[in-house]
Amino acid sequence: MFVTELESALDGRKFPADELQTTHKDRPLWVRYDLEKIASAVTKDDLLNRPADIWRWRELLPVPKNARIITLNERTTRLIKTESLQKQIGHKNIWIKDESTLPTGSFKSRGMSMAITMAAHFGVKRIALPTAGNAGGAAAAYAQQADIKCLVFMPEDTPAANQYETISYGASAFLVNGLIDDCSKIVGLAKEKLNCFDLSTLKEPYRIEGKKTMGLELAQQFDWKLPDVILYPTGGGTGLIGMWKAFKELRELGWLKSDIMPRMVAVQSDGCCPIVNAFKNGERFAKPFQNAKTIAWGIRVPAAIGDFMILDALKESNGTAVAVDEEMIDDWTVMTSEKTGLSICPETAACVGALENLKNQNWIHADDRVLIFNTASGQKYKDTVKVELPKININKEINWEIIEASL
Amino acid sequence: MFVTELESALDGRKFPADELQTTHKDRPLWVRYDLEKIASAVTKDDLLNRPADIWRWRELLPVPKNARIITLNERTTRLIKTESLQKQIGHKNIWIKDESTLPTGSFKSRGMSMAITMAAHFGVKRIALPTAGNAGGAAAAYAQQADIKCLVFMPEDTPAANQYETISYGASAFLVNGLIDDCSKIVGLAKEKLNCFDLSTLKEPYRIEGKKTMGLELAQQFDWKLPDVILYPTGGGTGLIGMWKAFKELRELGWLKSDIMPRMVAVQSDGCCPIVNAFKNGERFAKPFQNAKTIAWGIRVPAAIGDFMILDALKESNGTAVAVDEEMIDDWTVMTSEKTGLSICPETAACVGALENLKNQNWIHADDRVLIFNTASGQKYKDTVKVELPKININKEINWEIIEASL
Repeated sequence: MFVTELESALDGRKFPADELQTTHKDRPLWVRYDLEKIASAVTKDDLLNRPADIWRWRELLPVPKNARIITLNERTTRLIKTESLQKQIGHKNIWIKDESTLPTGSFKSRGMSMAITMAAHFGVKRIALPTAGNAGGAAAAYAQQADIKCLVFMPEDTPAANQYETISYGASAFLVNGLIDDCSKIVGLAKEKLNCFDLSTLKEPYRIEGKKTMGLELAQQFDWKLPDVILYPTGGGTGLIGMWKAFKELRELGWLKSDIMPRMVAVQSDGCCPIVNAFKNGERFAKPFQNAKTIAWGIRVPAAIGDFMILDALKESNGTAVAVDEEMIDDWTVMTSEKTGLSICPETAACVGALENLKNQNWIHADDRVLIFNTASGQKYKDTVKVELPKININKEINWEIIEASL
Repeated sequence: MFVTELESALDGRKFPADELQTTHKDRPLWVRYDLEKIASAVTKDDLLNRPADIWRWRELLPVPKNARIITLNERTTRLIKTESLQKQIGHKNIWIKDESTLPTGSFKSRGMSMAITMAAHFGVKRIALPTAGNAGGAAAAYAQQADIKCLVFMPEDTPAANQYETISYGASAFLVNGLIDDCSKIVGLAKEKLNCFDLSTLKEPYRIEGKKTMGLELAQQFDWKLPDVILYPTGGGTGLIGMWKAFKELRELGWLKSDIMPRMVAVQSDGCCPIVNAFKNGERFAKPFQNAKTIAWGIRVPAAIGDFMILDALKESNGTAVAVDEEMIDDWTVMTSEKTGLSICPETAACVGALENLKNQNWIHADDRVLIFNTASGQKYKDTVKVELPKININKEINWEIIEASL
């Protein structure tokens, strides 16, 4: 265990790492490591000789040696490059890191595995969180493994697949006739009324560390020369923040072969783009977005407590923030699924749209190596999409011309 | 390429392997290999030094050297053992091979990757198939990669997720106001009217070879000492047939460390159990099952053209066939999801039920190592399950006692 302390992202105040921590002034904490000690204890080759999962990065993770790891087998996700998508976009170097094959079908398992491992280690018996998407299912599945009771509050328009998975993994789940903020408020009450630990995004220090493994995997998969541009669908932003932390730690460890860092791009929908607005206005804190609306549930986050951490990362990395046309997300989803053969989620589709925009604006150059995440399995979103297939009546003559025309 | 010829499973008649083949007397063909030549060309260690996907078994697969492989990255699936499921069942050695993380979220990708690689190699431009579940999405995704037009016919009660994925991968899909047999008849017509190649289960020789990789992976994952019992949800039966073929080929190659072969168990629902009925009556061919009904779509197959191949494998392996209570499948699904943290499909749940039955009957013994497949992601079935979560009204006082009682 190489953790030295926790540190307020807001004002740098230090907190001990050997007890349960939440936030400081309602803002997130960083986990800090003794990177010199890590560098002298292991080499990156040591780590790569271990099984290909998030736990191979153990020295860069906060889990104490004696802690029981709560895992559902979070294997290194594959990196995919498809000619047909590249042709469609007119850009040569597009990689997709497909997070849809992680446990519970989304990248949420990275953060939840870490957060719940740490919560269990510190003796937490009950957790609560708000969710409008994949976080609830992931929390429920890991809590189940850790024998922790899990309480989930969801807006009533949360997709049925997400509702179902929370209870199928044994959580207690409730629908709320309000938005995600209303659910957050109820979680705040549950903390006191029912002695629940608050597992909301960035309200405990360890989900960032789990998401950091996306950055660590990328570094290895790109042979320690990081991609030039990373497009990230940004709701709470844990992944973007976590990856940027990973890259800085790897640079400090001396493990990167090139000093060129990726330009980080926060992608949102114009139906909910608080980070994009703040970035444009040069502000460090984002104003809550009113009447947030997007079919990409994962980025329907009107106010993120890590807003300044996201905006800092964009600035430090010479990145940017892009709001794409909400009306186009459906089309991009279908197009990208077709061109890649992957089960693409709408958040990923938004990033494909942002890539098109940034290419047209020449912000992305012809030789830039671009990375997109497929953050969750598109299969989980099916009930948000209307499907109406043409019908064949077996009691009538089949019209083969229509069928042939469809090919 | 070590393929010598194709061989009728019905009467042993030989067919050349270097041209497109379908069936013989409407019954399937085996792919035959020169196993001696394979044994002298490679060792199993050679194969294991390759990337962990279905293509590491190349010498045991039918794909010619010069063929373009149509792949979406079919990685070796994980083997999972969870204490809490074992406790629940009261059996020590239960492994689940989780196929849900394969491309398009089901084991169908194994067979389709192989079938479409071969179809493309032989110049096929159009394929057609009937499906009530995961096969359509898998066929569509691989056909897209191969630039093959894909025509899919589905009963109108096919789950929306399956409908959606076929079109999201660019297939032409049609709903039919009938059962899967009606869809099959239309495929038969499409063959002639539209010059489509028939990709229905077992109507071409290569889906078996793709499914064979389940058996090859198992052998390696169990250190070449095969599990004692394999419970397999049996619809068309391609996987059961393919695994049994894999085990026999491995034995002939001399790669197995133990000669004890698994007892193969065909699991069906009592709402559709033609194979179970035939097995009980000692028949080699199954009578079509009338009024087939089960929520486990993958095993709602009233008549399988490989029936005799399934029944032969059960007999040769000292296996059996079990019909479980249709009414219980929902409960087993929830229980197994809870106990494993996996996204369990109803076909898998049926196998868990069968395991309970066979343990109670002492057909499965205390020290038997039992293997179950999770054949597809449970996320794809969500619209077949009714979810009704309790509601919280933010305009009224929250009843914390009810919430606490739910924990």
